[in-house]
Amino acid sequence: MRYSTYFIPTHRETPSEAESVSHKLMLRAGMIRKLAAGIYTYLPAGLRSIRKVEAVVREEMNRAGAVEVLMPSVQPAELWQESGRWEYYGRELLRFTDRHDRQSCFGPTHEEVMTDLARKEIHSYKQMPVNLYQIQTKFRDEIRPRFGLMRAREFIMKDAYSFDKDDEGVNLSYEKMYDAYMRIFSRCGLRFRSVEADSGPIGGSYSHEFMVLAETGEDQIASCTVCSYAANLERAKVNPPSEAGDVPGPEMDSLRYVETPGVRTIEHLSAFLSVGPEAVVKTLIFTADGVPVAALVRGDHELNEVKLKNYLGAGEIQLADPAVVAEVSGAPMGFAGPLGLSIRIVADHAVGSMTNIVAGANREDFHVTGLNPGRDLTFQECADLRVITPADPCPRCGEPTAFSRGIEVGHIFKLGTKYSESMKAFFLDERGEERPIIMGCYGIGIGRTVAAAIEQNHDDNGAVFPIPVAPFEVVLLALQMHEPSVVETAEDLYRGLADSGLDVLFDDRDERAGIKFNDADLLGIPVRLTVGLRGVRQGTVEIKLRSETQAATVPVTEAVAFVKDKVKDLYDSLK
Amino acid sequence: MRYSTYFIPTHRETPSEAESVSHKLMLRAGMIRKLAAGIYTYLPAGLRSIRKVEAVVREEMNRAGAVEVLMPSVQPAELWQESGRWEYYGRELLRFTDRHDRQSCFGPTHEEVMTDLARKEIHSYKQMPVNLYQIQTKFRDEIRPRFGLMRAREFIMKDAYSFDKDDEGVNLSYEKMYDAYMRIFSRCGLRFRSVEADSGPIGGSYSHEFMVLAETGEDQIASCTVCSYAANLERAKVNPPSEAGDVPGPEMDSLRYVETPGVRTIEHLSAFLSVGPEAVVKTLIFTADGVPVAALVRGDHELNEVKLKNYLGAGEIQLADPAVVAEVSGAPMGFAGPLGLSIRIVADHAVGSMTNIVAGANREDFHVTGLNPGRDLTFQECADLRVITPADPCPRCGEPTAFSRGIEVGHIFKLGTKYSESMKAFFLDERGEERPIIMGCYGIGIGRTVAAAIEQNHDDNGAVFPIPVAPFEVVLLALQMHEPSVVETAEDLYRGLADSGLDVLFDDRDERAGIKFNDADLLGIPVRLTVGLRGVRQGTVEIKLRSETQAATVPVTEAVAFVKDKVKDLYDSLK
Repeated sequence: MRYSTYFIPTHRETPSEAESVSHKLMLRAGMIRKLAAGIYTYLPAGLRSIRKVEAVVREEMNRAGAVEVLMPSVQPAELWQESGRWEYYGRELLRFTDRHDRQSCFGPTHEEVMTDLARKEIHSYKQMPVNLYQIQTKFRDEIRPRFGLMRAREFIMKDAYSFDKDDEGVNLSYEKMYDAYMRIFSRCGLRFRSVEADSGPIGGSYSHEFMVLAETGEDQIASCTVCSYAANLERAKVNPPSEAGDVPGPEMDSLRYVETPGVRTIEHLSAFLSVGPEAVVKTLIFTADGVPVAALVRGDHELNEVKLKNYLGAGEIQLADPAVVAEVSGAPMGFAGPLGLSIRIVADHAVGSMTNIVAGANREDFHVTGLNPGRDLTFQECADLRVITPADPCPRCGEPTAFSRGIEVGHIFKLGTKYSESMKAFFLDERGEERPIIMGCYGIGIGRTVAAAIEQNHDDNGAVFPIPVAPFEVVLLALQMHEPSVVETAEDLYRGLADSGLDVLFDDRDERAGIKFNDADLLGIPVRLTVGLRGVRQGTVEIKLRSETQAATVPVTEAVAFVKDKVKDLYDSLK
Repeated sequence: MRYSTYFIPTHRETPSEAESVSHKLMLRAGMIRKLAAGIYTYLPAGLRSIRKVEAVVREEMNRAGAVEVLMPSVQPAELWQESGRWEYYGRELLRFTDRHDRQSCFGPTHEEVMTDLARKEIHSYKQMPVNLYQIQTKFRDEIRPRFGLMRAREFIMKDAYSFDKDDEGVNLSYEKMYDAYMRIFSRCGLRFRSVEADSGPIGGSYSHEFMVLAETGEDQIASCTVCSYAANLERAKVNPPSEAGDVPGPEMDSLRYVETPGVRTIEHLSAFLSVGPEAVVKTLIFTADGVPVAALVRGDHELNEVKLKNYLGAGEIQLADPAVVAEVSGAPMGFAGPLGLSIRIVADHAVGSMTNIVAGANREDFHVTGLNPGRDLTFQECADLRVITPADPCPRCGEPTAFSRGIEVGHIFKLGTKYSESMKAFFLDERGEERPIIMGCYGIGIGRTVAAAIEQNHDDNGAVFPIPVAPFEVVLLALQMHEPSVVETAEDLYRGLADSGLDVLFDDRDERAGIKFNDADLLGIPVRLTVGLRGVRQGTVEIKLRSETQAATVPVTEAVAFVKDKVKDLYDSLK
């Protein structure tokens, strides 16, 4: 491609609207332009990167036996009413009414439409497994779209939906997708982790997120420093503390009521009584499906509401309001404690092994100290209720964990029969019995993957793209377009590179060398081949990788072969 | 691709919803499924045909120097308000309000968004010409969507927009697109015509439509039987009648007023006076931008309002209401005539050469006969105002014309400065003066092209696709999947065909031969290779073209080469 007849409008200034590295660099490199909040045009260079990710995704989906379709953006409300999500989905669902007053929405996801297709076309166990996928434009009316393609409202997504007759089938479908996702992000040249995740509002029973590791990531991941365990913070397990064995614990103090006037927070209480927060137990009163429950965690730990909800098997939980707290504890907010509380109590594992606990006294302006489980009270229910901390060992192997940040680029779910039951997608099994189809769903944010590649790989001068995601593999710079010898050499090399099947941007603009070097860096093209007058007189050109600082001087006659080798090395390094 | 693990749900019954051949066949062949009125899912076989058309379009657009981008579906109202189309576009524009109460629409076309990009990125004549295109999903809220992909509400379109500094530039851009479109539809294997067209609601000054010829087409085309002239009926020119030369015309009768009580229509008048409608002149009173004008056409001719409007240079014309007619003619509707009318009169060329005209008398219940131009009155303005008839000669070469029906699959426009002026997309020219960018726009309906291919090419058993648009090039049928020798031969052939780079559907289903033959025909796959037990025992297979009735018996060992040749012949026949 010749730069002079292409359309890559780069900018030197950092646009004021940009809120993240990838957003800033994609705007500056002329890859995207904002049309409205969270809505972007993909300019040619940006579209090239998008298409490269799409191609990898398509190849791996096909290899995994998934079949490509393309579904509409505009979806009728009726289907969403059937699944129950017309009410549930909230304002992220962009709804509208057409000229015949039919309610519709701009699809943010396609479970309903896919399930509708399945119930019309799949009637027998013989027709499964089926996995249908599409690469399609979606819209989610985010309340605060930001970071460019990282959290856009209109975005390109690969979404796949598997249909199986039994659990064994869906497990196999899920595994195939898991493996395909591992290959996809590896082939894109990204450092990433697959992490156990909570399935969130899409529903279902099991899920993994694929996280591109980047300091700027919005998600936190806890991962083992030794084994392959990794999980989203909201999902990471915490094992019960190991038994102390023969080491004797501290001596038990006697139980005392102490006056703590107006002391309602852990911080305040720690300071007031001169004890660390790890000596305190927080008593949090929730209502679980309307019934009050007390959850206990250590003062320095954070309750994980997802874990609590899952443990209770509740449909909905929320912190109780002050009236409920007063009613069940007999005291205002800030003084609830386990001692004498007559509602259901669930304690985090760590609480069970504490001695000399400080806790609320269920009496206004009073706390208790020297509270000891076993002696003063018994916890009937201990469970994993808290958010993992960097001090916690790996729940799988016991080795130390490390926290890192990531950008979610893929998410796979076992949906089970959530949609097939509500929308009546049934099939006849081997015995002629009607059963709901078992579904899985599998998403990849295409634009977000390109943005994440930049968040993970950049320097002060621009993107440093992994070669599979770069808009071009090679950039060829002709430094003096008014010098016939330079132009002639560059034209020859351009033909040679293109004939070798390389994806080359030939910067043939009549611009200063500095501008060409800057734009090449900004675009993050992995291999740069520079043709300058001085070199041409000596029969040489310069070849430099974007990720390195040193350039190599190479005879013109060997340049094409040298570049081909470099490109091959870059791809090989990803295998 | 193996049929057994693919997803092509064919149906034997004709779906009741189908209103056209292509709609019916695409549903039956499992290429599309309806989600809502005018909204379709592309199933795998349908998507393959769509992608094939896209690939041809993309190659030819790139070859013509156009640059691919991808723009959003959701467009802010502000841009449409700037261009004036927020009001003008009507209810086909699907409008909605997002969660922040911002008005937006689902883009039915992208002139506004493109012009917005151009005004932000193109500032100098040095940056032009530029031609940006995309292949993108659009939505037009048609009042009566029908015929499947032929008139869908959500549809895939290739739209390109050229930006030039002067008329010479836009003419060249237009020509390049014209040539690209000719190549695209030729390469798709379609019989088509490019026709002069009126530019309609998009505006602009010059345009061509590309029509796939098909009996079921909605559009009528007048084309020369000798030269390359072709035009949409609403655009086709009619030359003035040639001079009669020395042949004397009929003798002039004397002018008479005849009583014609209650006779207000041409039919009634012809019958009442026993003259042919070609002896009568229709006098139609219009208001052109509010001013009354009389337009005269022969009684057997049809006035072309577009021509009248263009001739008058009016912004808006409409038939005058009865009060205006009464005021200007002094008589009720049905009795207006040219004689004595004091408003502006424009006559179709054919009227100027009539003798002994019958016309309204501008007096209730009276007409005149024996009215003769030159003797009784003079027409100051004669012009081409009528719709062409099959009797009219080609306006370019004078040879006979023929009428045919077509399906519009492409449309190219010179837009001029309509959008760049209203949206202030200016550039600095060579002299440093600010001028509006000159635009062109160029559309192709991708899905409609596939549908049109079927409308043009089908028989009672299904589609008969031109090979470039077919979902597969070759279908391989194994008739007895329980016979190891058949399966083994078919598997070998499948590998051989796939290794040759052919796009093969291997029907490896455990189904009856009849079902396999029917589905292969329904899908319209151009080359069929059949492996049956009897043949395998003799070392032969059968090869048949979808477009022919006779099959060839070929040794198994030569089958792959034979099929390759057939496929090559099919492509070569399109060159």
